[in-house]
Amino acid sequence: MTSFDTALPSIRQVQTLIKEASSVQLKLVTGDLLAGKINWQDQNCLSLVDENKQQILVWRHAIAYLKLKN
Amino acid sequence: MTSFDTALPSIRQVQTLIKEASSVQLKLVTGDLLAGKINWQDQNCLSLVDENKQQILVWRHAIAYLKLKN
Amino acid sequence: MTSFDTALPSIRQVQTLIKEASSVQLKLVTGDLLAGKINWQDQNCLSLVDENKQQILVWRHAIAYLKLKN
Amino acid sequence: MTSFDTALPSIRQVQTLIKEASSVQLKLVTGDLLAGKINWQDQNCLSLVDENKQQILVWRHAIAYLKLKN
Amino acid sequence: MTSFDTALPSIRQVQTLIKEASSVQLKLVTGDLLAGKINWQDQNCLSLVDENKQQILVWRHAIAYLKLKN
Amino acid sequence: MTSFDTALPSIRQVQTLIKEASSVQLKLVTGDLLAGKINWQDQNCLSLVDENKQQILVWRHAIAYLKLKN
Repeated sequence: MTSFDTALPSIRQVQTLIKEASSVQLKLVTGDLLAGKINWQDQNCLSLVDENKQQILVWRHAIAYLKLKN
Repeated sequence: MTSFDTALPSIRQVQTLIKEASSVQLKLVTGDLLAGKINWQDQNCLSLVDENKQQILVWRHAIAYLKLKN
Repeated sequence: MTSFDTALPSIRQVQTLIKEASSVQLKLVTGDLLAGKINWQDQNCLSLVDENKQQILVWRHAIAYLKLKN
Repeated sequence: MTSFDTALPSIRQVQTLIKEASSVQLKLVTGDLLAGKINWQDQNCLSLVDENKQQILVWRHAIAYLKLKN
Repeated sequence: MTSFDTALPSIRQVQTLIKEASSVQLKLVTGDLLAGKINWQDQNCLSLVDENKQQILVWRHAIAYLKLKN
Repeated sequence: MTSFDTALPSIRQVQTLIKEASSVQLKLVTGDLLAGKINWQDQNCLSLVDENKQQILVWRHAIAYLKLKN
C-alpha cells in the first residue's frame, strides 16, 4: 500500500512534475514504457496524458520507475 | 491494498467510465490487453463486459493501466 | 490484502459461481489458464476442481481475471 | 498479507496436507514447479521437503497454486 | 507485508542459517538465482554475502524460495 | 508495505549508501539493471541519480536487489 503522505519526498516530487507539466517516462512492471505528462496522482494511481492527449490511468503497484523524458 | 475511498480521483474516474458506458482497454500485468465496458467496481475487482457480452472479473492487483479505447 | 467482506460484489459473484457450479476460467499472473468449478473461497485462496476432479488451491494474489468458460 | 487464521479453509487444507504427508506440486509466480511434501507453514512461508530430502523455504507471495501430485 | 515475529518458524529458520553461516541459494521473482551466506535479516530485506564477499541487499517481496546450496 | 523504521538495518544501510555517495546497482522485477548513486529514500521510493546526472524515481515494490557497483 502506498503511503500517501504529501510531506513525503516521492509524493512531493510527483506533485512538482504535475505543476511544471514535465514530460516523463514511466516504466511499468509489464515492461511497457509510457510517455506523457502527469495531470494528477492519488493513493492508487497516476494519471498520465500522452502525446495524443489521451489519458492513461496507471496503477502505482505497476510502476517500476519514473524519469524525465530526454 | 486498494484505498476504496469514493472521493479519490481514481475511484471517481472509474465511476464516470461506468456511468458513461465508455469503451476501455485494460492492460494487465500478464501482458493481456482486455477491451470492454466496466459495469461495476469494488475494492478488489473491476467487472468488465467485453464485445461478446461476456463478463470478466478483473483483479485490481493485476491491472497495469486503463485507457479509453480509440 | 483481499477485503473479504461478503457484501462486496466481487465476493458475492464468486459465491454465486460456487452455488451454480459454473464452469470458469482463471487466468493467473504466471500466464496459466486454469479451468474448472470453484468449490469454495476464503480470504487467501479460491479452490478450483478441474475436469479430472482434481482440486487446485489458487492464491488470490496470483489471479489476473476470471470468466465463465464458453 | 496472508490472513493466518487457522479456521480458514486454505490454512486448514494445507494443515491437512502436512498431517497426511501428501505429495504436492507448487506452481510459483516465477514459473517454477516445485514438488515435495509440506512439513510446516507459517504466515510468511511454506516449508517443502523435496524428493532428495532437501528443504525448500517457499514464500507465500510467490505461490500461484498448489495441487496434489498425481 | 512480512510478519517479522521472531517466534515464527520462517524467521527462526533464517536466523539459524545466519548463525550457522550456511551457504544458501535464493531464487528471485526475476528468475535470478543468488548464492551466498545470509548475514542478517530484517522486516524488509535479507542481506546476502556472495562468494566474492560482496554484499547483496535482497528485498523479501522479491524472494520466491530459499534452499541450502548443495 | 515497507516498514520505514530508521532503526532497521535495511533502511540504515541505504542511508549509509546515500551519505557515502556510493555507486550502486539496482536490479528491478522488470529485469532492468539501473546504476547510479542514491540521493534519498522514503517509504515508497528510492531516488537514483545515474551517470548522466538524470534522476530516476524507483518504486520500492519494484526492487529485487541492490549491490555496490564494482
